[in-house]
Amino acid sequence: MGGAAPAGRDFLPPIETVSWRDGAVRLIDQRRLPAELVHMECRTVPELFSAIRELAVRGAPAIGVAAGYGAVMAVWKSRSGTAGLLREVAAACKELAASRPTAVNLFWALDRMNRTAESLSALAPEEFRERLLAEARAIHEEDLELSRRMGRAGAELIPDGATVLTHCNAGALATGGLGTALACVYAAVAEGKRVSVLADETRPLLQGARLTAWELSKAGIPVTVLCDNMAAAAMQQGRVDLVITGADRIAANGDAANKIGTYGVAVNAKHHGVPFYIAAPESTFDRACLDGSKIVIEERSAAEVLGIAGWVGRGQEPEARSEAEGSVPVPGVWNPAFDVTPAELIAGLITDRGVLRAPYGESIAAAFGGRG
Amino acid sequence: MGGAAPAGRDFLPPIETVSWRDGAVRLIDQRRLPAELVHMECRTVPELFSAIRELAVRGAPAIGVAAGYGAVMAVWKSRSGTAGLLREVAAACKELAASRPTAVNLFWALDRMNRTAESLSALAPEEFRERLLAEARAIHEEDLELSRRMGRAGAELIPDGATVLTHCNAGALATGGLGTALACVYAAVAEGKRVSVLADETRPLLQGARLTAWELSKAGIPVTVLCDNMAAAAMQQGRVDLVITGADRIAANGDAANKIGTYGVAVNAKHHGVPFYIAAPESTFDRACLDGSKIVIEERSAAEVLGIAGWVGRGQEPEARSEAEGSVPVPGVWNPAFDVTPAELIAGLITDRGVLRAPYGESIAAAFGGRG
Repeated sequence: MGGAAPAGRDFLPPIETVSWRDGAVRLIDQRRLPAELVHMECRTVPELFSAIRELAVRGAPAIGVAAGYGAVMAVWKSRSGTAGLLREVAAACKELAASRPTAVNLFWALDRMNRTAESLSALAPEEFRERLLAEARAIHEEDLELSRRMGRAGAELIPDGATVLTHCNAGALATGGLGTALACVYAAVAEGKRVSVLADETRPLLQGARLTAWELSKAGIPVTVLCDNMAAAAMQQGRVDLVITGADRIAANGDAANKIGTYGVAVNAKHHGVPFYIAAPESTFDRACLDGSKIVIEERSAAEVLGIAGWVGRGQEPEARSEAEGSVPVPGVWNPAFDVTPAELIAGLITDRGVLRAPYGESIAAAFGGRG
Repeated sequence: MGGAAPAGRDFLPPIETVSWRDGAVRLIDQRRLPAELVHMECRTVPELFSAIRELAVRGAPAIGVAAGYGAVMAVWKSRSGTAGLLREVAAACKELAASRPTAVNLFWALDRMNRTAESLSALAPEEFRERLLAEARAIHEEDLELSRRMGRAGAELIPDGATVLTHCNAGALATGGLGTALACVYAAVAEGKRVSVLADETRPLLQGARLTAWELSKAGIPVTVLCDNMAAAAMQQGRVDLVITGADRIAANGDAANKIGTYGVAVNAKHHGVPFYIAAPESTFDRACLDGSKIVIEERSAAEVLGIAGWVGRGQEPEARSEAEGSVPVPGVWNPAFDVTPAELIAGLITDRGVLRAPYGESIAAAFGGRG
């Protein structure tokens, strides 16, 4: 990593998205942002299960950290002996794993907690719990350290005075640390640079207008929200120096799946000569996936799109609409959750092992070794 | 115009956006679409003034048609002699002109009605009114005929089975006829082609999701709504055969101002080899404006953008927000109403005089003569 950046401890997350508090898993309820900052304390496995399932906490790394603490919380007040605690941890992990069926970090964190619990079976209950908590804290601290590394690498790409455009929320609210794309902004600011952010609102779920705008405002970093369809005009007018987004999955050749709309931003960045970067840790790289054409894109409900236009109530599916309301058929909706940005549009991949450049097949293999 | 297209009378507007009904100006209240189809009948000048000002009727041509009928409505029940009627028409025109201060078609239509009234000063009151109504009907019919001509020209560009992507609402709801961009779709369908439409939702005011989706559904034409940020992925996946949008103003060199987001669609169309067309009648061409850099872009309120994200109530400006709500500063907003698509991204300009091709400086001058 670049040696000029300050030590990792010099920049802390602006918020505690997930934390351990007196036997409870404490979460920012992201469903209520930006209108109000409400912390919820989950003291039972079903409470945490609901919080994950209903998106009070979202973002794969943040879910992983919450699940780690959840495995500890499940036995924190238990009066069982160590053998009983082991069974209770296993049961909690099994239950929590069903909360978001496709979240890789969730399964990974629960598996790690289970294996740790098994390795502690010879200890007395009190020490078992303390060591299990230490493991959950380690998951959290490692996540924070990963985001610090991405941040330092990305900060070198952000000139003093720059405006960074981002899409969706790849920030502290999505992780146990500083985020991925926004970690670069936090690190640049920690280095003393003046940075401002243009946040695409990110329809249909508005993660940019709600979450990115909120956490940057909270951190005192100037942020301006614009509708997704305004990003091209912003680039045309020279208002964007570089783009940084996160990613959900990056193929072995560098093709990157991310929140819907990322691809259109990348095409526009190319057209305007604005560098387009993606920030992601090693866990986002799927070496078994050869290229973006292999990535299956989830399509989501029509209500997410039509809800604000008056065709249906918010959260209500079109089928539920009364025939009486004007006798005009409800239009079709196309609502893919992600798109794939081909590697040739990406100026660099900002990772916990530094910034990778094209050709990505080679630089990804060199950074993360020969697996996949 | 191409001779193969059916006669103009063969395709009528799917709806009557504006009409004359027993002494009243009848309007579809577009604020209530798509939830319900409500007609309002304006019987006084203040009623029509409010309807225009509050966007019950919108779209420059539709406002012009409504204003024309408004000048007749103002004197329809009057008991004055012709000299009095003349003064009443002038007063009504003056009042209506203040309803939308920048609407060129509004001023043009009111001026035409005023001049017609003056030319009728020798007639008896009854005949004065009938001839004034005939002039308002002529404005309406000319607008419909213009849209038929654009429609026939544009239909030749739409292959059987094609999917057309459009942005905002440049349809029957925006004019007294069939619209501009959507006139091409209506004409192609009237010719027996199977056409489907992808409608960008068009944040922040959702004219695509609300109005384009509604009028096409009403006309029985398959329409699918997508968020603005999904258009690029749709092109990447080969789901778009061509793009047609309207325009608010076209410069002498072909640069075109239209609803915000149009430019980003044009850049993406270029990247994917999808032809990007703009449909507009002669009145949209501003020959005195040399190129797009001379077009001033209106910036609108932050509430239009932040209203749906929970920062502020809908329609409420951020300044009005309570300090108590979390003590996080409200983010900035950039909300330009239009953007400018440079001529080099435009495959053709679909006009009432046929499809113009690059170099546009020459083809525009050839189509519309030497003024400007």
